[in-house]
Amino acid sequence: MEALLRILSIIFLVLTACLVGLDSQTKVLFHFISRKASFKDLNALYVLVWIDTAAAVYNLLQVFRCYKLPDLTKDKPPYYIYLAWGFYLLDQAAVYMVFAAHSAAAQASIFAVTGQKNFQWMKLCDKYTRFCIQIGGALLCGYFACLVMAITSSISAYVLFKRYSPQKFMVLKGN
Amino acid sequence: MEALLRILSIIFLVLTACLVGLDSQTKVLFHFISRKASFKDLNALYVLVWIDTAAAVYNLLQVFRCYKLPDLTKDKPPYYIYLAWGFYLLDQAAVYMVFAAHSAAAQASIFAVTGQKNFQWMKLCDKYTRFCIQIGGALLCGYFACLVMAITSSISAYVLFKRYSPQKFMVLKGN
Repeated sequence: MEALLRILSIIFLVLTACLVGLDSQTKVLFHFISRKASFKDLNALYVLVWIDTAAAVYNLLQVFRCYKLPDLTKDKPPYYIYLAWGFYLLDQAAVYMVFAAHSAAAQASIFAVTGQKNFQWMKLCDKYTRFCIQIGGALLCGYFACLVMAITSSISAYVLFKRYSPQKFMVLKGN
Repeated sequence: MEALLRILSIIFLVLTACLVGLDSQTKVLFHFISRKASFKDLNALYVLVWIDTAAAVYNLLQVFRCYKLPDLTKDKPPYYIYLAWGFYLLDQAAVYMVFAAHSAAAQASIFAVTGQKNFQWMKLCDKYTRFCIQIGGALLCGYFACLVMAITSSISAYVLFKRYSPQKFMVLKGN
């Protein structure tokens, strides 16, 4: 099940990265000047593409791990508790990174949609409508990926903490 | 220990909310027009203050729970597993909400510091320097609160998942 969730999150992360990365719209501003909007115009979107790619690669490595390394949910090699801690912390770091990147990109997109009048930041999405709708869809996709990754990190927490004794503080169970 | 961590996160959340909420700087733009910068100018900061306050209240309720309700790390009332799941999910929701609010506010602040030339969004922090430095300090504080809340939610995960059997999938332990 863990591998399935990770594959699902890879699909959504790659979909988000592609939707953002391949989005572009050219607009003729005057009769002779045309301007092309792409994700490189906004730092937040640029960072988002790279972080989504990195998270997808990380999840791909974890999928391989699910098949190659002993199953931590059942087997108990001597080093299992360090592995379980490592995977738990890596999963947490990954989900927070992806979530932060998406929240920042969402905030930047809100500025692009609404503008900020008292700062004289003008809105841009009235000009590049199709571009902005695609970014919006990508962000929805990305938040779904975040949700799946949060569930995956809960599974890592389950795999790690079920090894501990319910009575004594931070003591491993015998059997 | 859980109560101590929660009190620590309350302190930092309240500190963040106060630093952002009480921050203001008045600047004379021309000889007769003066303009006051406050957190209400930027939606992201306004939302941040309210979410930080809500998270602080939530953590305060949880601190009272630590003293009033039976200790879930040791006792086992019949309803304990539902409580443990509830607290785990609430903690997760709280930390992700606060983290999203901080990331959005950080992104908005980056725009205020650097501007975005190709969008003709001008930077503002060269005019309101003291205001911006205080917001920066508040965001640092807030990220520290996020870290403490993430640790707290790990403790909730530990309290919940250590009740489960290490062999069988999602089966509670006997003793």
